[in-house]
Amino acid sequence: MDVAKRLEELGITLPPVQKPAGAYVGCSLVGNVLYVSGHGPSQGNAYIRGKVGHDLTVEEGVEAARVTGLSILATIDDAIGLSRVRRIVKTLGMVNTAPGFNNTPAIIDGCSNLLIDIWGDAGRGARSAVGMAELPFDIAVEIELIAEVD
Amino acid sequence: MDVAKRLEELGITLPPVQKPAGAYVGCSLVGNVLYVSGHGPSQGNAYIRGKVGHDLTVEEGVEAARVTGLSILATIDDAIGLSRVRRIVKTLGMVNTAPGFNNTPAIIDGCSNLLIDIWGDAGRGARSAVGMAELPFDIAVEIELIAEVD
Amino acid sequence: MDVAKRLEELGITLPPVQKPAGAYVGCSLVGNVLYVSGHGPSQGNAYIRGKVGHDLTVEEGVEAARVTGLSILATIDDAIGLSRVRRIVKTLGMVNTAPGFNNTPAIIDGCSNLLIDIWGDAGRGARSAVGMAELPFDIAVEIELIAEVD
Repeated sequence: MDVAKRLEELGITLPPVQKPAGAYVGCSLVGNVLYVSGHGPSQGNAYIRGKVGHDLTVEEGVEAARVTGLSILATIDDAIGLSRVRRIVKTLGMVNTAPGFNNTPAIIDGCSNLLIDIWGDAGRGARSAVGMAELPFDIAVEIELIAEVD
Repeated sequence: MDVAKRLEELGITLPPVQKPAGAYVGCSLVGNVLYVSGHGPSQGNAYIRGKVGHDLTVEEGVEAARVTGLSILATIDDAIGLSRVRRIVKTLGMVNTAPGFNNTPAIIDGCSNLLIDIWGDAGRGARSAVGMAELPFDIAVEIELIAEVD
Repeated sequence: MDVAKRLEELGITLPPVQKPAGAYVGCSLVGNVLYVSGHGPSQGNAYIRGKVGHDLTVEEGVEAARVTGLSILATIDDAIGLSRVRRIVKTLGMVNTAPGFNNTPAIIDGCSNLLIDIWGDAGRGARSAVGMAELPFDIAVEIELIAEVD
């Protein structure tokens, strides 16, 4: 499948690659399994910050997860090329939750639906979507994933 | 080994397969490694909810983890058949903790001991067991795991 | 590369192997991928405990992460021998955060920099570094990782 063409059909332009926030790399390949580091929702030079359910609405949280997904795509494209992705295997979606906000699956669907829009059933992997006490620099969501690649 | 017979010996009947709470699948296979999504403690149509250490006692938390393990088994059985499981590799056990409750290993042992009851040493994998700020819809525990399969 | 010699150059003596806090093992190997369980910062018989940003300063949190890394090394050495490690693939660093403390990447760098000191670029893997509501027995950090081995 032609991922570049699919992104164009969806009107998606990939954002700049996120710089790691410490002593790690954006992704790491073992055999045909790619481990992507936790990414946050960056827009230009800024990050979407705050606790979902207090500082951000559900809709804003969903958008933050989608934007995070775009940054993950940018990292994969930069490292190995998106055309090598065969399938999304597993996603860990972490939401910066305000106390009492627990609809974390709806938030992380913002990323998952992006992946399914691009790869169809091959974009629908296993997943956990949970609420964190704190995320780096108060970003609204952090998502890491595992992909099978050619 | 005959897992169906072992379940019968243990008096275990598998629950219905949990429906994913969003845009993901219950498990995902890459080569001989199976990634199981985060599952919660479902009993019939209801989930065991609340924060361990406040709404639930330790004993109730342990039982919630065991019940979550049963749901994981049901998902694996439905997807590929439990007889294909060779070994439990890694578990991430997430407890919906009340502030100050930190005996998370004891809670997740409810799931781990179930897996060891079934597979013996092959059911004893690597693990982390930690306390979450929030879990989806206030479920008491969420557990994901990785298994090696034939 | 000679890991034992490198540890000696760095003046590192490995601590005793941590005993699992429940029904699991310290690490688990599938093919050439090693999954290491969540480890905490143990010193002798005691653990470094408390919430970073309240009970511990950033510097103390960084040191706790480094000490946790040493315990991970001890577990790997005991199980398969450190000389078999080819590369660090992925780290999940979990910080026991006080409310409002979100510089979790700086804390987990205490472990990541140790791994890079030992293995150079092969020690720099993918990573997430996040803030937890509670960790077992109030330990300051918990770190799990995946390594590629020979």
